[in-house]
Amino acid sequence: MKYRVEKDTLGEVRVPADRYWGAQTQRSLENFRIGPPGSMPKAVIEAFGYLKKASAIANCELGVLDVEKMNVIAMVCDEIITGELDDHFPLVIWQTGSGTQTNMNVNEVIANRAHILSGKRLGEGKRLLKPNDDVNLSHSSNDAFPTAMNIAAYGMIGRKTIPGMQQLRHELSVLSEATMDIVKTGRTHLMDATPITLGQEFSGYVSQLDHALAAISNTMPHLTELALGGTAVGTGLNAPEGYAKKVARTIAQLTGHPFVSAENKFEATAAHDALVETHAALKQAAVSLMKIANDIRLLASGPRCGIGEIRLPSNEPGSSIMPGKVNPTQAEALTMVCAQVIGNDVTLSVGGMQGHLELNVFGPVMIANILQSAELLGDASLSFAFNCVRGIEPEQERITAHLERSLMLATALNPHIGYERAAEIVKRAADSAITLREAAVLSGYLTAEEFDRWVDPGKMIG
Amino acid sequence: MKYRVEKDTLGEVRVPADRYWGAQTQRSLENFRIGPPGSMPKAVIEAFGYLKKASAIANCELGVLDVEKMNVIAMVCDEIITGELDDHFPLVIWQTGSGTQTNMNVNEVIANRAHILSGKRLGEGKRLLKPNDDVNLSHSSNDAFPTAMNIAAYGMIGRKTIPGMQQLRHELSVLSEATMDIVKTGRTHLMDATPITLGQEFSGYVSQLDHALAAISNTMPHLTELALGGTAVGTGLNAPEGYAKKVARTIAQLTGHPFVSAENKFEATAAHDALVETHAALKQAAVSLMKIANDIRLLASGPRCGIGEIRLPSNEPGSSIMPGKVNPTQAEALTMVCAQVIGNDVTLSVGGMQGHLELNVFGPVMIANILQSAELLGDASLSFAFNCVRGIEPEQERITAHLERSLMLATALNPHIGYERAAEIVKRAADSAITLREAAVLSGYLTAEEFDRWVDPGKMIG
Amino acid sequence: MKYRVEKDTLGEVRVPADRYWGAQTQRSLENFRIGPPGSMPKAVIEAFGYLKKASAIANCELGVLDVEKMNVIAMVCDEIITGELDDHFPLVIWQTGSGTQTNMNVNEVIANRAHILSGKRLGEGKRLLKPNDDVNLSHSSNDAFPTAMNIAAYGMIGRKTIPGMQQLRHELSVLSEATMDIVKTGRTHLMDATPITLGQEFSGYVSQLDHALAAISNTMPHLTELALGGTAVGTGLNAPEGYAKKVARTIAQLTGHPFVSAENKFEATAAHDALVETHAALKQAAVSLMKIANDIRLLASGPRCGIGEIRLPSNEPGSSIMPGKVNPTQAEALTMVCAQVIGNDVTLSVGGMQGHLELNVFGPVMIANILQSAELLGDASLSFAFNCVRGIEPEQERITAHLERSLMLATALNPHIGYERAAEIVKRAADSAITLREAAVLSGYLTAEEFDRWVDPGKMIG
Amino acid sequence: MKYRVEKDTLGEVRVPADRYWGAQTQRSLENFRIGPPGSMPKAVIEAFGYLKKASAIANCELGVLDVEKMNVIAMVCDEIITGELDDHFPLVIWQTGSGTQTNMNVNEVIANRAHILSGKRLGEGKRLLKPNDDVNLSHSSNDAFPTAMNIAAYGMIGRKTIPGMQQLRHELSVLSEATMDIVKTGRTHLMDATPITLGQEFSGYVSQLDHALAAISNTMPHLTELALGGTAVGTGLNAPEGYAKKVARTIAQLTGHPFVSAENKFEATAAHDALVETHAALKQAAVSLMKIANDIRLLASGPRCGIGEIRLPSNEPGSSIMPGKVNPTQAEALTMVCAQVIGNDVTLSVGGMQGHLELNVFGPVMIANILQSAELLGDASLSFAFNCVRGIEPEQERITAHLERSLMLATALNPHIGYERAAEIVKRAADSAITLREAAVLSGYLTAEEFDRWVDPGKMIG
Repeated sequence: MKYRVEKDTLGEVRVPADRYWGAQTQRSLENFRIGPPGSMPKAVIEAFGYLKKASAIANCELGVLDVEKMNVIAMVCDEIITGELDDHFPLVIWQTGSGTQTNMNVNEVIANRAHILSGKRLGEGKRLLKPNDDVNLSHSSNDAFPTAMNIAAYGMIGRKTIPGMQQLRHELSVLSEATMDIVKTGRTHLMDATPITLGQEFSGYVSQLDHALAAISNTMPHLTELALGGTAVGTGLNAPEGYAKKVARTIAQLTGHPFVSAENKFEATAAHDALVETHAALKQAAVSLMKIANDIRLLASGPRCGIGEIRLPSNEPGSSIMPGKVNPTQAEALTMVCAQVIGNDVTLSVGGMQGHLELNVFGPVMIANILQSAELLGDASLSFAFNCVRGIEPEQERITAHLERSLMLATALNPHIGYERAAEIVKRAADSAITLREAAVLSGYLTAEEFDRWVDPGKMIG
Repeated sequence: MKYRVEKDTLGEVRVPADRYWGAQTQRSLENFRIGPPGSMPKAVIEAFGYLKKASAIANCELGVLDVEKMNVIAMVCDEIITGELDDHFPLVIWQTGSGTQTNMNVNEVIANRAHILSGKRLGEGKRLLKPNDDVNLSHSSNDAFPTAMNIAAYGMIGRKTIPGMQQLRHELSVLSEATMDIVKTGRTHLMDATPITLGQEFSGYVSQLDHALAAISNTMPHLTELALGGTAVGTGLNAPEGYAKKVARTIAQLTGHPFVSAENKFEATAAHDALVETHAALKQAAVSLMKIANDIRLLASGPRCGIGEIRLPSNEPGSSIMPGKVNPTQAEALTMVCAQVIGNDVTLSVGGMQGHLELNVFGPVMIANILQSAELLGDASLSFAFNCVRGIEPEQERITAHLERSLMLATALNPHIGYERAAEIVKRAADSAITLREAAVLSGYLTAEEFDRWVDPGKMIG
Repeated sequence: MKYRVEKDTLGEVRVPADRYWGAQTQRSLENFRIGPPGSMPKAVIEAFGYLKKASAIANCELGVLDVEKMNVIAMVCDEIITGELDDHFPLVIWQTGSGTQTNMNVNEVIANRAHILSGKRLGEGKRLLKPNDDVNLSHSSNDAFPTAMNIAAYGMIGRKTIPGMQQLRHELSVLSEATMDIVKTGRTHLMDATPITLGQEFSGYVSQLDHALAAISNTMPHLTELALGGTAVGTGLNAPEGYAKKVARTIAQLTGHPFVSAENKFEATAAHDALVETHAALKQAAVSLMKIANDIRLLASGPRCGIGEIRLPSNEPGSSIMPGKVNPTQAEALTMVCAQVIGNDVTLSVGGMQGHLELNVFGPVMIANILQSAELLGDASLSFAFNCVRGIEPEQERITAHLERSLMLATALNPHIGYERAAEIVKRAADSAITLREAAVLSGYLTAEEFDRWVDPGKMIG
Repeated sequence: MKYRVEKDTLGEVRVPADRYWGAQTQRSLENFRIGPPGSMPKAVIEAFGYLKKASAIANCELGVLDVEKMNVIAMVCDEIITGELDDHFPLVIWQTGSGTQTNMNVNEVIANRAHILSGKRLGEGKRLLKPNDDVNLSHSSNDAFPTAMNIAAYGMIGRKTIPGMQQLRHELSVLSEATMDIVKTGRTHLMDATPITLGQEFSGYVSQLDHALAAISNTMPHLTELALGGTAVGTGLNAPEGYAKKVARTIAQLTGHPFVSAENKFEATAAHDALVETHAALKQAAVSLMKIANDIRLLASGPRCGIGEIRLPSNEPGSSIMPGKVNPTQAEALTMVCAQVIGNDVTLSVGGMQGHLELNVFGPVMIANILQSAELLGDASLSFAFNCVRGIEPEQERITAHLERSLMLATALNPHIGYERAAEIVKRAADSAITLREAAVLSGYLTAEEFDRWVDPGKMIG
C-alpha cells in the first residue's frame, strides 16, 4: 500500500495515500484494534455532515469564517451526507469515549477532501482548511459528538422505528377489525377462560403499540436539545456570541427536524440522559412487541397439537429434517430483536450513569446501541407486519371447537346461581369429562333452557 | 394457636381464630412459603381499600348492590386504607401471578370484618357479605389487581418520588446559585479542562433532575388508565353497563388522582406496560442521580489527596479503624439505591414482556419492584438533599490553587495563535513542570502582557 | 420514649434507653431514613456474630485480647447468632456503602450487652469493652463487612438455594422416570414435531438443574476467600502477625464451611467479584427455572382448549370470578422469582463494577440482593417441587390423541423416500385435513403396510 | 443482476446466478430484511464448516454416506473454514430462531459448490449432493445450530478472550512488581486512607483477573457438550447408532478442542444454558475490568488538578479544542466494551429463559452476543495492555506529596493511644490545616519522637 505523511501535535504519521483522513484518524486506527473495523455507525457520520455544514454556515454568518471556506465545507458535507465518502471513515466504536477521534476523522476528511476539490493533491500544497481551526471552529468534540448523537438517533427513529411500528400497528388494526366478531375462548394463566373475540385480542396489541408510540414521542423533545455551542465544558469558550442558537436553527433547517439549542449546556455535554430516556421508550416497545409476537405464535401453535386458532403464512420450509413444517419465524426474528433491545437498554444505563464531571465518555457505545435498537425495531416490525400479520387467517373450525368445549362459560351463571354453585358444576363437568351443559342440568341448579339462555358466548364478549 | 374452620370451593381450611382472612388466603399462606412473610406491599392493600370502596359505591349506584352492603364495605375499606387491618394481610409477593390471592384476601377480610362490625363473631352466624359475590361484585382479580397496581404506583410516586426529587432539585439549585461565581477548573475525561464555575456544574445536575421529573410526568397518564370493569378477560362480562367509567371516576374522587377507565381493557389486563413505562422513567432518574452523586463525591474526594474542591457535612465518624475519617456516605446510600433501581428495571422488563394472551401473570413482582424503586428514590433523594447537599461548602483555597495550575487555560490562546502553537506551549509547560505563563512567554508566540490579557479564567466561563 | 446519652468522636447522641446500640448506630438511624426500617438482612448480622466471635478468639490466641474480654464477646456473639438480639439491629441497607455503620452497630451492641451481662446498667459505670478498640480489634469495616457478606451468602446458599434446587431436581427426576415410556408429540417452535417421551422432556429439566447446581458449586470457592485481616486497605495495618489466617480458620470451624483467608487482600476489600460470580450462577439457575416452569404451564395449558398433556394439582380456587378454574400458580410464583433474580443480577453488576481504588462501597446493596435471590430461589424451588411437580399427572388421552394427529411423524419417512417427497405428503395431509397415513398412501410413494412399518412413534424416540 | 432458478419444497425461487446458495437462503434474504445485511457472525459459518465436515466423516464411517460424497463435503468445508466462501453466506441474525436458515444456507452452499468442484455449472445437471438428504444427513438444524454455537463460542474465547485477558494480567503483574515498593496514600470511599504501595494496588487487579479467568474456565466444560446427534427433538431420530459420539469426537479432533457429546440431548436442544453460563463469566470479567480501568483513570486524573499519581502514555492528541490534552482513551474504550458486555448479558438471559418445550428459538441472537462480547473483551484487554498499562509511569513527586499530607497516617496511633484520641488529633489537624505531626504533639498524647517512631508509612503497608 502507498502512504503519505500527515502530522498532528504529537508528530508524523503514515496514512494510506488515497484516504482523506489524517494523522489523528490514523493513530486511532492503530491504537484501537477492537472488534470489526469501521464499526462506528454511518448514521453518526451522516449526522456530522449536517453538523459541520450547519456550523460552517453559522460561523460564516457570525463573521468568523469566510465564505470560501464555508462553501467548500458545505460541499464536502453534502458528499458525507449522501454516503459518498463512507470509505474514509474507518474508525470503531471502541475509541475515546468522547468520540473525539471520529470528530477529528470528520475534520480531517473535510480538510483533505476540500484540498482535492480545489484541484490539489493529497499531501501537497497548502491546505485551505485546518481541521481544528476551521472545520472544528466554535465547537469541540465534547459538544459536537453529543449533538451528532442526537441528530443520528432522532433521524433513525423517525426514518425506521416509528414508520415500522406504525405499519405493524396498521396491519394489526386491520386484522382486528376483520376478526372482531369471531368469538373464541379467552385464556388467562394459559388456562381456558371466558369468551373474547379474536378481534378484541388483536385490539389489545394495537393499544399496546399506540401507547409505545406515544411513549417514544414523549421522549423526543429531550432529544432535540443540542449541546453544540457549549464547546469543551459547556461554557461556550471560543464560540462567538449567538453561535449556539444559530447553529441549532441551521441544523433544524437542514435536517427538517425540530432541533433547538439546549438551555443548559453543562448537562448536555456531561450527561447523555436524552439517549437514556429515548432508549427506555424503545425498550418499552420491545417489551410490548415480545408479548404480541409471543401471543401470535401461541395462538398459531400446532397446527394439530397446539392451540391452532390462527394460521400464519408459510414463508419458507421450516425444518431441515421435518418435512412440511411451517414455523412462526417472523415472530422469532422479532422476539430476538426484542431480546437485543432489552439488553441494549442496560448498556445505555451503564453508560449513561457514569459521566464524570464535565463529560460523559460513553457516547460511542450509547449511540451505537440506540441506533441498533431503533433500526432493528423498525425493520423487524415492518417485516413482521408484512410477512406475518398481513397473512394471518383464523382457523374457524378449531376456534368453534374450543369455544364449545370450554368450561369457563360457567362464569355466565354467577349472577344467576352464585359463584359457588357454578364452581360445583364446573368441577362435575371436569371430573366426568362431560359438557358444561350436561353438568349444569345434572346439578339441578338450573334447567337446560336456562342454561341455553344464560350461557351464550356471543353475549359474553361485551 | 386457636383456629376456626373456613371453606371455599375446594373444601374446608383451618384459619387462625382471630384473623379476618378466610380459606383462600389460608391456602395461599400454606402453599407459598417463599421469602419473608407478608411481603406483598402494604401500598397494594391500601390501593385495594380505595378500589373495593369505589366498586361498592359504583355497584350501589348502578343498582346491583344494596345500600347496607355498600356502607359496610366502605367502612371496612376505610379501616384498610388507614392501615388498621394490616395484620390481616399476611400474603407474599410470590403467589399467583394474577394477584388473585391478595384480591381474595381483601374480599375475605372485608366480609369477615363486616361480620364483626355487625356485632357477630367470626365463624358464627350468616355473613352479610359473600367475598366473591358481593365484595368482588362486577370485577375479577384480572382487572382488579392491575387497577390496584396503578393506584399504588401512582400514589407512591406522588407521595415519595416526586417530592423527594423536587427537594433535591431545590437544594441543588440553591447551591448552584450560591456558587455561580466561583470559577474553577473544569474536567473532561477526568483530566483538567477549561474553566467553569462551581455553580455551573451544579446547574447541570438541576437540569438533569428537571428532565428526569419531566420524563416521570410524561409516563403518568398511562398509569391513570384503569383496567377495572374489564373483569376476567377485558370484555366486562358480569359487570353492569357503565360500571367501568363510574368506578374509575369514583376511584379518582377518593384518591384525588386523575384516574380514568382504560379505553382498551384487553391491553389493560393482558399487559402491564404502564408500569414498564413509568419504571423506565424512574430508571432514568436513577441514571441521573448516579452521575450526580458520583460527581459530588469526586469533587469532595481527599480531603488532602484528592480533588477536594468541596466539603461535605460530617454526619458521623466514617471509619471503625481510621480516626477522624469523614466519608461521602449519603452519596453512597443514594448510589446503592440507583443500582437497585437499575436492576429492578430489568425485573419489570422481564415481567412485562411475558404476558400470555389475556393476562400477564407477573403483576405482584412488577408492582413490588416499582413501589420499592419509587420509595427508595424518593427517600434517598430527600436524605441526600438534607443530609448532604444542603451542607456542601466550597473549598476556595484548593479551587484557586487548581485553577492557577491548570494547563488547559491555554485553550484561550487558540483564537490568537492557533491550536497547534497552543499545544506546543502546553507540552513545554507539562514537560518542564513550569507554569503555562512561563511556557507561553518562552515560546515567543506571545508576550506576558498578551498572556495576561488573553488568559483570564474569569472570562472563560461564558 | 426514654433515652440515655451515648457519645462517639463527633459528640453526644440520645439513644433509646433500652437498646444496646450506641451513638454511631443512632446517627445512622437518623441520617438514613430510606425505605422500610431495619432492612439490613438478619443473615448479615448473624454472619457478624460468627466473625466477631472468631476475631475475639484469634486476638486472644495471638495475645492482643485478654481472656475475659474474649469470653464475653463470644457469649454475646452466640446470642447474636441465635437471633436473640435482633431488635438491636435497626439499620437499613441504604447506609454507608462500606457497611461501617452495621459493623459499628455490632460493635456497640456487643460492648453494651457485655456491660449488662457483667451486671451493670446501660449508660452507667465503666464498660469492659470499647467498641472500636476491643470488639473491632485487628480489623476494620473494610475487611469485616466483605467477610460478613461472604459468610452470609455462603450460608444462605447452602441452607436454602442448594437444598431447594436439589429437591426440585429430585422430584423432576422421579417424574421423569415415571413417565419415561409415555410417547407423545414433541414440539419445536411451539409447532408439532417428531415424537418424544414425557419422561425425556422432564429429563432435560433435570439436566438443566444439574448444570445449574454445578455452576453454583463452581463459584463457591471464590466466596470462601475472606478479606478479614486486610483491615483498612488490605495491608493488614494494626492486625497482629498471623491474624488473617487464624481468624479465617476459626470462622471455618465455627460455621462448618471451608472459609480461607484471601490470598490477595487488596482485591478482597476493593472488589466484591465473588458475589458477582456467585450471583451470576444464581441467575443462570433462574434462567433455567424460567424455562422449566414455562414448559410445565404450557404442557398443562387448557385443560380443554390448550395443550393439556399434563394435569397440575389443584391447590386453590384459581379465579375470583371464574368458578372451577385451576391455574398454574406455583409456576407463576417461581417465574416471578426468576424475574426478580434476573433483575438483581444487574444490580450486582452495577454495584460490583463501581469499586473505587481500595474499596467498593456497594456492599450492602450487593449482599441484600444476593441473599434475596438465594432465599427466593431456594424457597420457590421447594414450593414448586412439593406443591406442583410432585402432583403432576399425565393426561394420557390427550397425549395419545395429539400423537396420532401429528403430521411430523412423516420425518420417519425421510430415510425411505427422501425429504422432498415426505414434505409433499405432509402438505397434502395438511391441506385436505386428512391423516398422514391417508395422504401417504394417496401419494403413491409407499404402501399402507410400509407406512405402518416405518412410522411407529414408539420407535422414533431413540 | 443475472439469476438462476432454484427450488425447494415450497416452489421455485430466483437466486443470483453466481452465488452458491439456494432457494431457502434466498427466501430468508427476502423475508428478513432486518438490520445490516450479512450480520450472522462468520464465526458461526466457520463452526458449521467443522460441523458438516465432521458429520460427513462420521456418516461415512457409519456406512450411511459414501466416500465420494464425504470427500467433496470435506473439501468444501475446508473452503468454508478458511473463509473463502464468505460471500455466499448473506443471512442475518434476525431470522428463524432455530438458525435453520443458516444451516440450510450451509447445506445449499456445500451442495452447489460441490457441483462446481465436480466441473459442472450452477443450475445445470444433476447434483451429487442433496442439501437435506446428504449434507444434513443424520442431523437437524435443532441439534446442528446449537452445536455450531458452542464450537464458535469456545473458539472465540480461546482465540481472543483468554489470550487478551492473560496479556493484560501479565502487564498488570509486571507493573505491580515494578512498583511494589512505592508507598503511597490509600483511598477508601474516595477519601484519604492508610498507606498502601502502588504495586499492592495493581496486585489487586491481577487477582481480579485471575479470578475472572478461573471463572471463565469453570464454565467451559458445559460449552464442550454438543447437541449434535439429537436431531429434531433430542431423541436422535434418523441418526444412525453411534453417530452422536463419533461426530463429537471428530469435531474435537478437527478443532483441537475437547468437545464431547452431551449426555442429555433434550437439554442440549431445548436450552442454551451453556451460553448463559459462559457469558455470565464474561460479564464478571467486564465488571472486574470496569473497576480496573476506572481506577487507572482515577489515579491518572489531572495531571495537575486531580490525583495524578500515575501517568498514562500519550497515544494521541486528546482534544479537538484543548491543546496538549492527554486523555485516558484506552480506559474509555475498555469501559465502553464492559458496558456492552454487561448489556449483552441481559440479552443472553432474556433469550436463554424463553425456550419452549423441545427448542429454544433465540439461538442466533444469543450466539451473536456472546461472540461480540468475547471478541471485544479480548481485543480491548489487549489494546489496554499494550497501549496503556505497559506505558504507565508512577509520578513519584505527587505520590510523596500526597502521602506526607494524609491525615489517615494517624491510624498507626490507635494501638498506642486508642481510636478516640487519635481521632481528636486528626480533627485538630484538619480544622487548623496543620500537619498531623504538629497536631499530635500539640495534643500532648505523645511526643514528636514517639510520633516519628510510630507513624512510619513505610511500615504501614504489611
